[in-house]
Amino acid sequence: MRNLNADNITAAVVEEFSGCQDERLKTILNSLVGHLHTFLREVEPTEQEWTQAIDFLTRTGQMCDDERQEFILLSDTLGVTMLVDAINHQSSDPMVSESTVLGPFYVADPPAAAKGESIDWNVEGEPLYAEGRVRDERGEPLANVVVDVWQSDSEGFYDVQKELDSASLRARFTTDDQGRYAFWTVTPAPYPIPTDGPVGKMLEVTGRHPYRPAHVHFMLMADGCESLVTQVFAEDDPYLDSDAVFGVKDSLVKDFRLMPPGQAPDGRSMQTSYRHLNYDFGLKAS
Amino acid sequence: MRNLNADNITAAVVEEFSGCQDERLKTILNSLVGHLHTFLREVEPTEQEWTQAIDFLTRTGQMCDDERQEFILLSDTLGVTMLVDAINHQSSDPMVSESTVLGPFYVADPPAAAKGESIDWNVEGEPLYAEGRVRDERGEPLANVVVDVWQSDSEGFYDVQKELDSASLRARFTTDDQGRYAFWTVTPAPYPIPTDGPVGKMLEVTGRHPYRPAHVHFMLMADGCESLVTQVFAEDDPYLDSDAVFGVKDSLVKDFRLMPPGQAPDGRSMQTSYRHLNYDFGLKAS
Repeated sequence: MRNLNADNITAAVVEEFSGCQDERLKTILNSLVGHLHTFLREVEPTEQEWTQAIDFLTRTGQMCDDERQEFILLSDTLGVTMLVDAINHQSSDPMVSESTVLGPFYVADPPAAAKGESIDWNVEGEPLYAEGRVRDERGEPLANVVVDVWQSDSEGFYDVQKELDSASLRARFTTDDQGRYAFWTVTPAPYPIPTDGPVGKMLEVTGRHPYRPAHVHFMLMADGCESLVTQVFAEDDPYLDSDAVFGVKDSLVKDFRLMPPGQAPDGRSMQTSYRHLNYDFGLKAS
Repeated sequence: MRNLNADNITAAVVEEFSGCQDERLKTILNSLVGHLHTFLREVEPTEQEWTQAIDFLTRTGQMCDDERQEFILLSDTLGVTMLVDAINHQSSDPMVSESTVLGPFYVADPPAAAKGESIDWNVEGEPLYAEGRVRDERGEPLANVVVDVWQSDSEGFYDVQKELDSASLRARFTTDDQGRYAFWTVTPAPYPIPTDGPVGKMLEVTGRHPYRPAHVHFMLMADGCESLVTQVFAEDDPYLDSDAVFGVKDSLVKDFRLMPPGQAPDGRSMQTSYRHLNYDFGLKAS
């Protein structure tokens, strides 16, 4: 293992991993080394470019904290997250809802809320009434499904990006015996992914915009079913065909219908116009 | 750009970079995305494995500070650093010295030292007298070459790894009008690369040892020549054929010759045995 050059170093590195007892890890590392070296032989980086890459990766790691995950942003913006999603959730069954990226703003154990409750705590904006049913692959309604919801406000910011004392626009609902969920919120806005770090700089210097179309995040968990992580996008959004993280699917786009003042679907009397989203989910048996 | 799947997402990401005005950056990113996606399609990571990868990269970045560069260690241990070195320093001219990795312990602007001076400040160990000549491609001696030297102590530690008030075992020399350099130091020891971070853990779980064979680092800078970053390895070292960073080349291995007490090459009277390294360098015209 001396005198390694561009032609024989890849085999030498793979050989060094040959003693790895974890066969899956060995497979992953051997494939990684092979493709990484092929990439380098193809682009032939200068030493300055290598230094810039080391610096980029270092700053990306150092941008991360409890409320910010810059490496997930990098994965998202390079299409890696959606590729991994596609690899793990291939289904051609129209009864099963499609998945998309989790994103960096999910917070575990959100506050519980009752069906029909409003989660617009500490924010203002155009009211949105969201409702729908959760069914299994055969179309049977699923009761007691945990439905975690989170979204931006009407200016595009999540609660964790603001100086709030408590959660807002995020909650955990449970479907009723008809498989129904429902809640009041505010209409989310399209927003840029955080641009003050290395990933934002990458988008800027490559001429890419950082915007995501307006959406509500959903995570559904039910006994006997695969968990579903997905988003529902507003049909009239200008960024549907250029989502910075490649997450839009036609089946996840729905009309956030503008409704005149009057009686809302849940009987509430609305003095202003509001929006109404009706979206049903289908879960795959696990 | 909707409904992306494992078959069409790569083209969609590449298309998003199509507006990049920096052609070199566009080439690198397109190649990166292609090979990264091919790797992922090949190994089909689970979402848990993707999460582990994000976590590994994040911890690697967060391990870095002014005196520690974990991403360089990762590059070194995956053979990336030596591959980039090979791509940038291909020379078949036997008059030109071979290069190898810089490593994480170089410190810019080391203390100046005079030819023949000892740099064993604040350390003890077996004495080593190192000397040699620096020549150009035609074999002509090169005067006034800046020769930066740095190395571990006889227990395998660099000064920056210890609580020292000043530099030790690192200095900047200048060749005399015969192209000669010379200094006294202590014999370096083989040592493990730092194992208390994510890269050390990777070596451990894959069954790789973290050791590098004993060596002295050299960086040579002369007007009209390409700078040379290299190392000279001790001929009797047990790790020459399993260097954790793949950096050993036969031309860089030399006898650190054990010498009996008596008069050293520079006239110094030695009461104990010591070692003698005589190594000549050849620089390539820039």
